[in-house]
Amino acid sequence: MSDAAEIQRVIDTWVGAFRDRDVAAALGVHAEDAVSFDIVPPLRYIGTEAYRQPWVETFENFVGPIEVELRDLDITVGTDLAFSRSLNRMTGTMRSGDLVDLWYRWTACFQKRDGQWLIVHDHTSAPTNFADGTAVLDLEP
Amino acid sequence: MSDAAEIQRVIDTWVGAFRDRDVAAALGVHAEDAVSFDIVPPLRYIGTEAYRQPWVETFENFVGPIEVELRDLDITVGTDLAFSRSLNRMTGTMRSGDLVDLWYRWTACFQKRDGQWLIVHDHTSAPTNFADGTAVLDLEP
Repeated sequence: MSDAAEIQRVIDTWVGAFRDRDVAAALGVHAEDAVSFDIVPPLRYIGTEAYRQPWVETFENFVGPIEVELRDLDITVGTDLAFSRSLNRMTGTMRSGDLVDLWYRWTACFQKRDGQWLIVHDHTSAPTNFADGTAVLDLEP
Repeated sequence: MSDAAEIQRVIDTWVGAFRDRDVAAALGVHAEDAVSFDIVPPLRYIGTEAYRQPWVETFENFVGPIEVELRDLDITVGTDLAFSRSLNRMTGTMRSGDLVDLWYRWTACFQKRDGQWLIVHDHTSAPTNFADGTAVLDLEP
């Protein structure tokens, strides 16, 4: 399988982890020492062990599958590193009954370690409106 | 100069562009087709030409130098790609007289093109508090 195809498979696994609300699958595509800048605080998570509980809580807040669509996914593949960017649409139903339908930005940085492509850093966010201090959560591509 | 040193120089140029409020310098470290996920809307900027006016407006909103400190800068260098992540502190004085002192997350993705390292994608953000829809602008590392 080509490097590009392997990275696509990592991304597909990550998307599937949302659908199945499977924390182990979501973390499994990350290196153990991955540093994540998540859409929610704090500023960063260092290592997947620190990142586990927030994933558990996020997935527990939903019922049924969480669908993630990756719009304009662009993967740049190098010899030993790669990165991807996409605009992601997350849709799902929360325990409260609220529907979530959110577009956000996702950047993932990959490294090939012992022949396996892993996410070593990712960055997920919504833009900020500095005029009123809100996160801008109603944008569409 | 090693690849790592060249990438550090690109980052130093980018930091210097804030200090000098020099739009050409800020854009000059980006590839012309760079895609930026900025801290402000919209979701993305495609190409530096589209990105020019927001930089002009941002820099015009300040008086004097804008200082950017990169905390825990981590650069991963591959053969032909590289990426960096850091927590950045931006300080400066706005025309309104307001002082800006903001920590945010910055990810930059680099590609070596014709022997020159350029930023081909970057992602800048503050986390979102989904409980009240605000951007979380008072975090410190």
